[in-house]
Amino acid sequence: MNKQEINNQINNILKEEFFSELEYVFESNFNYSFSEINDKTIARMIDHTLLKTDATISEIKILCEEALQYNFASVCINPSYVKVCSEILKGSQVKVCTVIGFPLGATTTEAKCFEAEQAIANGAHEVDMVLNVGMLKNGDYNYVFNDINQVALAAKKNNSICKVILETALQTDEEKIKACIISKTAKADFVKTSTGFSKGGATAEDIALMRYVVGSSIGVKASGGIRTREDAENMIKSGANRIGASAGIKIVNGEKPESGGY
Amino acid sequence: MNKQEINNQINNILKEEFFSELEYVFESNFNYSFSEINDKTIARMIDHTLLKTDATISEIKILCEEALQYNFASVCINPSYVKVCSEILKGSQVKVCTVIGFPLGATTTEAKCFEAEQAIANGAHEVDMVLNVGMLKNGDYNYVFNDINQVALAAKKNNSICKVILETALQTDEEKIKACIISKTAKADFVKTSTGFSKGGATAEDIALMRYVVGSSIGVKASGGIRTREDAENMIKSGANRIGASAGIKIVNGEKPESGGY
Repeated sequence: MNKQEINNQINNILKEEFFSELEYVFESNFNYSFSEINDKTIARMIDHTLLKTDATISEIKILCEEALQYNFASVCINPSYVKVCSEILKGSQVKVCTVIGFPLGATTTEAKCFEAEQAIANGAHEVDMVLNVGMLKNGDYNYVFNDINQVALAAKKNNSICKVILETALQTDEEKIKACIISKTAKADFVKTSTGFSKGGATAEDIALMRYVVGSSIGVKASGGIRTREDAENMIKSGANRIGASAGIKIVNGEKPESGGY
Repeated sequence: MNKQEINNQINNILKEEFFSELEYVFESNFNYSFSEINDKTIARMIDHTLLKTDATISEIKILCEEALQYNFASVCINPSYVKVCSEILKGSQVKVCTVIGFPLGATTTEAKCFEAEQAIANGAHEVDMVLNVGMLKNGDYNYVFNDINQVALAAKKNNSICKVILETALQTDEEKIKACIISKTAKADFVKTSTGFSKGGATAEDIALMRYVVGSSIGVKASGGIRTREDAENMIKSGANRIGASAGIKIVNGEKPESGGY
């Protein structure tokens, strides 16, 4: 979609009864500009991620050590490892990020809140929740709004931030736009593309769309399938200010794309 | 592994400090016999399953209607659809089954309990929880025992049953045996092979191993990749008394293997 087509879609969506009642501010003349990309700035954008079912404590400890060494933004781990990561990373710049209702997004709102509150009590600074994709497809926008809003408020109350995973691979462009509008007005701090457990990950097109819809006031996290420096720079230039990846070290150390290559 | 090798492994495991303290009764001369398999008996063993992220309410309603028509054991759906399924299936023989800590098993014990209790309050009769595979691999058997036991007791307290998903594809045979011993002593009602979201599903070998280890007093559920009548009969003859599948109708109506073919 080009800008004009996106503008039209947004304007049409905002005429729908549910959306017309949201306090959504559309920055229709918004142009994204990214700051300088170098090893240090890119490391500070990376959520160093290990979410597999059978991750062991030794792997988690290595993840934390790497995050400290490279000064990554955070480690992103499953809830049952939040406490141990919080202890290891205490006093450092590296945050603890965990996932909520992950990766299906189909737990109840109450369960997502419970998970988020407990994770924060255990030391998480950032909670990445999965949006209820089924309910979005059902057109139950009230449900989706409340689901996000409850978790976002629980995070805010405890000085933490909430990212909303859209699972873009399962959504139409119209659904992605709706999800962004709902997430922003429901007080999410970030929209995020993917869990990494579905059929596709982040694309530059989706990042550009999401950044355009949410504008400048909240973050955009690219995740799923980002394996190289080039992938990461491509996402940042498209509008991402956070990168979720298990390949963080390769991204920082890896071959840099030629300047001006984009 | 043959029976003798399994016996040896079990005996070795039971000598380990943690396991020697469990009240595990090993039925070492146990031989499994399955009852007659026909369309009706097989239908009564099927958990008619729809767990994908983007399942819509229309798909869920069709699932329930099919379950009623075929008299399946249950519908197995994500927690945010428990209430609606419970309303549709009220007064029928078809149970509502949902999943807990699914599919990664790496949420906290408290979160699993909260999810299970809420699901049961919303009308679930059966909760299929995922074991914390990472903690099993860490050798933290106390954690794994407590994680299962808390959910199993929450289920029992509310007249519901608890199945424990091992995610066999990620485990060694020794780990599978340990998981079965822990699950049985932690008061689970079933051990179950797979989430369907990992790299492999149920195998006849794993079902036979699990049935042999847990003996006659608890159930064994085969799930993941069961697509035909032949697959299902193979699992039942190996020791399964419950089948988790999205292909339930095809399994009931499908081509029957020739009798004596096994």
